[in-house]
Amino acid sequence: MTPHQARALFQAARVARLATADGAGRPHVVPIVFAVDEDVIYTAVDHKPKRSRALRRLANVAENPAVAVLVDQYDDQDWDRLWWARADGTGRVVSTGSDEEQRAIERLRDRYAAYLERPPAGPVLAVDVRRWSGWFATSASAGPRASD
Amino acid sequence: MTPHQARALFQAARVARLATADGAGRPHVVPIVFAVDEDVIYTAVDHKPKRSRALRRLANVAENPAVAVLVDQYDDQDWDRLWWARADGTGRVVSTGSDEEQRAIERLRDRYAAYLERPPAGPVLAVDVRRWSGWFATSASAGPRASD
Repeated sequence: MTPHQARALFQAARVARLATADGAGRPHVVPIVFAVDEDVIYTAVDHKPKRSRALRRLANVAENPAVAVLVDQYDDQDWDRLWWARADGTGRVVSTGSDEEQRAIERLRDRYAAYLERPPAGPVLAVDVRRWSGWFATSASAGPRASD
Repeated sequence: MTPHQARALFQAARVARLATADGAGRPHVVPIVFAVDEDVIYTAVDHKPKRSRALRRLANVAENPAVAVLVDQYDDQDWDRLWWARADGTGRVVSTGSDEEQRAIERLRDRYAAYLERPPAGPVLAVDVRRWSGWFATSASAGPRASD
């Protein structure tokens, strides 16, 4: 899978999983909704956060900015249709009230109908992606079916 | 979500995401198929591994045994149906040829029809779970719908 294909799969996916690690290297992983802007992935803390968890991913990024984000397709009936794409990069909290925060929130609202009712709250986390990579079970899946 | 509910959601799920980190604390995340035996999660390296990736998760566990495994439900139409469950624990490679490896492979084959054609190869990774936790968007989801 090329970096371009990996990014395209992120742009088409609705949910991703965000892996962070604390300063001691203990990994943490949560599902996220997100938006992609060039080589940056944006996600907002949930509108209905469980406070301790919302803080965990942010505390981890403050201690250790290395993060990995995954999107994938699983198909129990046909393992030839499996694929995943990963973005490795650096996480940072976007400055509150900045233009970048506003743009990120607009992108998230444009992308998820649920955000129209309940706009994203809390800080916006940006992941500056250094590497897009991925894997298809079969090269045949690299065609239009890849984003099924 | 109670630890019992979190484990039950793992037992019902078909795919999970495994987060590891290397010795420097850089996180890594991949989708896995798996089987749960009490407080242990077993997964095998893919029958068709991309060698470098297969090794990465194992190399990470050797350097840094802390791992987190996630299962979740996403529903674009109804965010009240969202949930996730996470298992935090310690990873280890199961001894080749051991009874435990044999049991783990049998469980994986029993669970996934695709493994009947192409039995799991490569080392089996065990995660000894210390903590099962999770989150429901609404407490109403804690009922039978939770494993929808």
